[in-house]
Amino acid sequence: MSTTNLPDALPAPNSDFYMIADCLSDKELEKLAEVREFAEKKANPLVNEYWAKDAFPFELLPSFKELNIAGAGYTGYGCAGGGTLFAGFLAMELARVDCSIATFFGVHSGLAMGSIFLCGSEEQKEHWLPQMARLEKIGSFGLTEPLIGSGASGGLLTTAKREGDHWILNGEKKWIGNATWGDVTIIWARDLEDNQVKGFIVENNTPGFRAEKIENKMALRITQNAHIIMENCVVSEANRLQEDSSFRDTARVLRMTRSFVAWEAVGCMMGAYENALRYAQTRMQFGKPIAKFQLVQDLLVKMLGNITASQTMCVRLSQIQDAGKLKDEHASLAKAFCTVKMRECVGWAREVLGANGILLDYNIGRFVADSEAIYSYEGTREMNTLIVGKAITGFGAFV
Amino acid sequence: MSTTNLPDALPAPNSDFYMIADCLSDKELEKLAEVREFAEKKANPLVNEYWAKDAFPFELLPSFKELNIAGAGYTGYGCAGGGTLFAGFLAMELARVDCSIATFFGVHSGLAMGSIFLCGSEEQKEHWLPQMARLEKIGSFGLTEPLIGSGASGGLLTTAKREGDHWILNGEKKWIGNATWGDVTIIWARDLEDNQVKGFIVENNTPGFRAEKIENKMALRITQNAHIIMENCVVSEANRLQEDSSFRDTARVLRMTRSFVAWEAVGCMMGAYENALRYAQTRMQFGKPIAKFQLVQDLLVKMLGNITASQTMCVRLSQIQDAGKLKDEHASLAKAFCTVKMRECVGWAREVLGANGILLDYNIGRFVADSEAIYSYEGTREMNTLIVGKAITGFGAFV
Amino acid sequence: MSTTNLPDALPAPNSDFYMIADCLSDKELEKLAEVREFAEKKANPLVNEYWAKDAFPFELLPSFKELNIAGAGYTGYGCAGGGTLFAGFLAMELARVDCSIATFFGVHSGLAMGSIFLCGSEEQKEHWLPQMARLEKIGSFGLTEPLIGSGASGGLLTTAKREGDHWILNGEKKWIGNATWGDVTIIWARDLEDNQVKGFIVENNTPGFRAEKIENKMALRITQNAHIIMENCVVSEANRLQEDSSFRDTARVLRMTRSFVAWEAVGCMMGAYENALRYAQTRMQFGKPIAKFQLVQDLLVKMLGNITASQTMCVRLSQIQDAGKLKDEHASLAKAFCTVKMRECVGWAREVLGANGILLDYNIGRFVADSEAIYSYEGTREMNTLIVGKAITGFGAFV
Amino acid sequence: MSTTNLPDALPAPNSDFYMIADCLSDKELEKLAEVREFAEKKANPLVNEYWAKDAFPFELLPSFKELNIAGAGYTGYGCAGGGTLFAGFLAMELARVDCSIATFFGVHSGLAMGSIFLCGSEEQKEHWLPQMARLEKIGSFGLTEPLIGSGASGGLLTTAKREGDHWILNGEKKWIGNATWGDVTIIWARDLEDNQVKGFIVENNTPGFRAEKIENKMALRITQNAHIIMENCVVSEANRLQEDSSFRDTARVLRMTRSFVAWEAVGCMMGAYENALRYAQTRMQFGKPIAKFQLVQDLLVKMLGNITASQTMCVRLSQIQDAGKLKDEHASLAKAFCTVKMRECVGWAREVLGANGILLDYNIGRFVADSEAIYSYEGTREMNTLIVGKAITGFGAFV
Repeated sequence: MSTTNLPDALPAPNSDFYMIADCLSDKELEKLAEVREFAEKKANPLVNEYWAKDAFPFELLPSFKELNIAGAGYTGYGCAGGGTLFAGFLAMELARVDCSIATFFGVHSGLAMGSIFLCGSEEQKEHWLPQMARLEKIGSFGLTEPLIGSGASGGLLTTAKREGDHWILNGEKKWIGNATWGDVTIIWARDLEDNQVKGFIVENNTPGFRAEKIENKMALRITQNAHIIMENCVVSEANRLQEDSSFRDTARVLRMTRSFVAWEAVGCMMGAYENALRYAQTRMQFGKPIAKFQLVQDLLVKMLGNITASQTMCVRLSQIQDAGKLKDEHASLAKAFCTVKMRECVGWAREVLGANGILLDYNIGRFVADSEAIYSYEGTREMNTLIVGKAITGFGAFV
Repeated sequence: MSTTNLPDALPAPNSDFYMIADCLSDKELEKLAEVREFAEKKANPLVNEYWAKDAFPFELLPSFKELNIAGAGYTGYGCAGGGTLFAGFLAMELARVDCSIATFFGVHSGLAMGSIFLCGSEEQKEHWLPQMARLEKIGSFGLTEPLIGSGASGGLLTTAKREGDHWILNGEKKWIGNATWGDVTIIWARDLEDNQVKGFIVENNTPGFRAEKIENKMALRITQNAHIIMENCVVSEANRLQEDSSFRDTARVLRMTRSFVAWEAVGCMMGAYENALRYAQTRMQFGKPIAKFQLVQDLLVKMLGNITASQTMCVRLSQIQDAGKLKDEHASLAKAFCTVKMRECVGWAREVLGANGILLDYNIGRFVADSEAIYSYEGTREMNTLIVGKAITGFGAFV
Repeated sequence: MSTTNLPDALPAPNSDFYMIADCLSDKELEKLAEVREFAEKKANPLVNEYWAKDAFPFELLPSFKELNIAGAGYTGYGCAGGGTLFAGFLAMELARVDCSIATFFGVHSGLAMGSIFLCGSEEQKEHWLPQMARLEKIGSFGLTEPLIGSGASGGLLTTAKREGDHWILNGEKKWIGNATWGDVTIIWARDLEDNQVKGFIVENNTPGFRAEKIENKMALRITQNAHIIMENCVVSEANRLQEDSSFRDTARVLRMTRSFVAWEAVGCMMGAYENALRYAQTRMQFGKPIAKFQLVQDLLVKMLGNITASQTMCVRLSQIQDAGKLKDEHASLAKAFCTVKMRECVGWAREVLGANGILLDYNIGRFVADSEAIYSYEGTREMNTLIVGKAITGFGAFV
Repeated sequence: MSTTNLPDALPAPNSDFYMIADCLSDKELEKLAEVREFAEKKANPLVNEYWAKDAFPFELLPSFKELNIAGAGYTGYGCAGGGTLFAGFLAMELARVDCSIATFFGVHSGLAMGSIFLCGSEEQKEHWLPQMARLEKIGSFGLTEPLIGSGASGGLLTTAKREGDHWILNGEKKWIGNATWGDVTIIWARDLEDNQVKGFIVENNTPGFRAEKIENKMALRITQNAHIIMENCVVSEANRLQEDSSFRDTARVLRMTRSFVAWEAVGCMMGAYENALRYAQTRMQFGKPIAKFQLVQDLLVKMLGNITASQTMCVRLSQIQDAGKLKDEHASLAKAFCTVKMRECVGWAREVLGANGILLDYNIGRFVADSEAIYSYEGTREMNTLIVGKAITGFGAFV
């Protein structure tokens, strides 16, 4: 939908209603402006087409590399640096145009690089992070299994068996973003000896490692997810994440990346809202723009309420994180709350567009579909609810 | 998802919790059993594949014809007959397996045949209804325009100009189901002379009539919708719907078919619910089926509440209709209420499945996506709300 | 609020939108008209005043007796008879004007008389039911305890110890409606010998039986609830409900009365809706009645949707019940669903009235407050959800 | 309910989950600790009793005076000073224990003192603010009328007629908090000459000024609201707010105080949540604390999500305000969003308590009832929605 010919008098859609951008430095804002330019000018014209054909727009990668944003939130090792607040804004900014591209970035920079940054040895960081920061190597994160969701990593069925300087991995991973075409995957597996979960940096071309594309998705169709099968896949001890000791490490990674997913949910809402508002300002019914109807304003204002509340919640979450006070339950609450609000919000946006809302061309239907994936990945609402529930009541209710 | 190996002890999913089927006669129940057999055995194995490729499964038509259900609710002219309660159950039963197929049927039997049945002359009924009842001619319904929704037919831009024994039609219609491949379309146009809306039976191969496939839908992808362009399309006066006098006639048709859409919404919920329940009974987490978790039971029971309330509402609606007491506002309330509940319900079903819910193979994602189309077609929630609102308050609030 | 001067042209508020009254016989409708007359003319002028002062309007009892409706749904023994559908309409009709009065009736006729009707011996029925039907004796129902909700009667702490021809009751009951001023209470207690729950007909003036008024309620303030304390309260074996064998009997009673609570919830919605609609038709803002605003119509139509769906659900529920097919889970679903919808509905009604909604005089605030009690009594939403959940999944998730 | 005997191991209820208190200075935190001490130790033991009897606890005023918090957010004139962020926390802290007391404070310090601070002359400020800051004079705010809500002050019916150095006021005001017992009321009236709204500082003992107590409230029963009748009430020109020129000034006041209402809504949620959590941790069912049930954790976590999102939204709102960037639409969005979330939240809290939730003694029912007043005062959800709607769409939809 063309947005260029709005009457001058009409306010341009602005989804930063409470000026949260003021919380960032000028330098960070400059970088975000670059990212927005990339997203709107380069990505936006391609995403509906690629979504329709269930494929990743590799032609975007060169421009993406130039953004130099991989490793945002991590200091050193060639990473983009900055705090998690800045990294959160990046996730939001990308998701505002396309949730799949934000997911590609979240998996690579958040989950894969984050695992190495948080759990890797100095040597591992020095080896992997710089080339991943330059997008020369694209990373994936293999935690979820066909029978075990990401929230329940205690029960992993994938096994690791030490044999001298090597480990033999066996098992399956499901929903592994980027892994059909990326280079390296962090695989979490249960050590048969001590029953602890350990992380491994596995190159995707390792013999015994097979990543099959998951077909027939109705959400995040640009993100390519793999079903990974490992049959006696041999990894050297040097590729075991050295700081990793147990399940706690996956929790450290997820705690951080769940915050980013909350930010993605915010971006998803913003994209849907801006498109819906623009549509409402120009679509006529009964001789006036539908934005002039109370029922339509009701939807738009409820959207903006959800967005603004979620934004301020994420800002505060990242501030806590940057202050070193983040706990699992903080991230889980934001992930659960913001994705619930996102689901409401994209539904209202779709409703504003009436039947046109189901055409990809109007830039709403994609957000509606994609939101379903964001709603469930990195911990379902139920799992995140129970994580918070345990923290506040003192009682676990998982089983 | 295989459903064949459920433990014997587990109750089979049953979405007729309040035994509404008891309201039908044995003969009607027999026919419904045939329809269920067709839907489950013939349609179900094909729909995900066709949905994914955005195409209509023509191979189903021969079996569909054998069902002899077109024209249900209309007496005579080779129609399937029965009351609207029975016709409602048919819509529900089809939608329970696939909303697109229910829509194909609703457009053909409800909207197209219904227009002829309600607004046609005796001669028109005798000519068209028998062959349509036999599915030899497939019908469409052209009311909605690119700039005018189905709820606002007062402002139609498509024009009809009488010239002797003929009419010249000009204008565009959007979202016209079945019209890319069907045979005949009821076109509603404004008579340039008296400014009244009139209906025309237009054969799709008429010169000046062009039906282009609408691409890039993210919902009801099996239903083929056309963007119709009429440029000096000539139709004989004999093909003008003779009983039609004005906008009131489209309202009569929509009043009837909006009831069927409410029934479709019920079927959509039932399909999603049964699949979600079956999944929950067998999917394990933390060593037990997730159906044993309170949070999952909460979702399932809320679904069943929405379904049961909507079912009983539709039963009563059809009883009113069969008693000749149906008014626009009755149908509008059911359409608005049941589609709102449907949207909630399919969302909960998707949630039960976690990430698997976004794979078409699990038979939930399709319902989620399709529900968005049902939510908006034949009058948005807003339009139906205002129709009821006027009836109960005595004040119109449309503009 | 005066409702007498509505413009002639405005539709009168009608909360039977789908004409469910057509499901009753003429004789039943006549009785209902009497009840409405009583409720509107006699009860309505008193209820706000009594609610404010937390007292029961005993002056209404003579007129109430003349209605001859106690024991509706039970045949014989001087009971009002009729089916449960009719009895449901009675509950709805009373609650439409005042939920406390409906509760007084529900406790006496449904719970107390129902316990004797379902679990009493022939002799007990003949002794008690006729005088209770004539309201000469007012009954209560003592199941809930301070530490045990009505949904969890398996764990009752009140004990019964057999000594010869007598039983010694000890324990406490909470929330016992009518018991501060009524005559007789059905007490459910655990037999110390066989650990089974048994029912006893206890006259309230029995030594050792003390019923203290529960103060400081913010809901159903007209209903007088007692905290009952039994200290060595002696009851003869002849007053033990003879057909009662175990917990199953309380379930039989609750199954029936939960249906009535669903009907009460419907009535509560209807009362709030009619008052809100009337207000909206006459309250002016910006120079027009607020009923003309889309945002107000939205609230009114959502209310009517909830009401109509709940009504049709209850009609069907009672039809199932009258057909002898009612199971616990059917009643639980209606209780949970209708009370959830009621809570939404009364909130919207209050919203229509703006600040005036918090004044008792406008006949909305009382419904809002009272709905909170109805929402939780005779089984919370959670308990009823788990009862349905077990039935549909095959898995109990109570603990 | 006693909260003193919680097991040591259980986490204490903490409704500042994201540590928003860290945004304040140490000095501000000290003052807040004093306020909490007052609220919990002095106010809490009295509020249920006073709520029940619909009266204001004047015995609290001496301790309240010692807090020295009146005029928070205003600099000079003996006011408590600090920013609006601090003032917002004060509102939250008071409402956390009792919404009526927070309202008493909001009317006096926010609306009445705020009107003088924002619209008064230097002389007026010097005369009134110091004694009001010391609570020697208690203020009220008279904008709302029986027929005109606070959101629609353009249509005021109260008139002011200039006669030499005096003004003659005539008209009625409704819902005027504190005015039955306070000293001075800011009256907004339409100047008969220029048709502009002007503000007047009216002492409540002025002849022709009558403040009648509004009876029969079911919410905020501790707050005493007056129905004010002015019959030829004479006020000197010196008591006209000198900076006031028109309706814009009431908007300036409301913009500020609507922010405080959003903060009150947050406090209301926090109070309900903490009580519900404490209850859930200790109330046993089926042999375990109900906090251990998934369905209860679900309610608690949804509450905490609403609270945390609303808190962070209000923090950001106040930051905008302190930065001088606040517009009407910012305050309106927070008022609408936070009060909607509050209503959900207190309902969930009540639900956690089952039937006990309707007893004032359990400290939940009062929050449920009071929330209804907060939801509607200082602009209904509808009015605030339309204020935001106009700002974002560019189209007014008020009429």
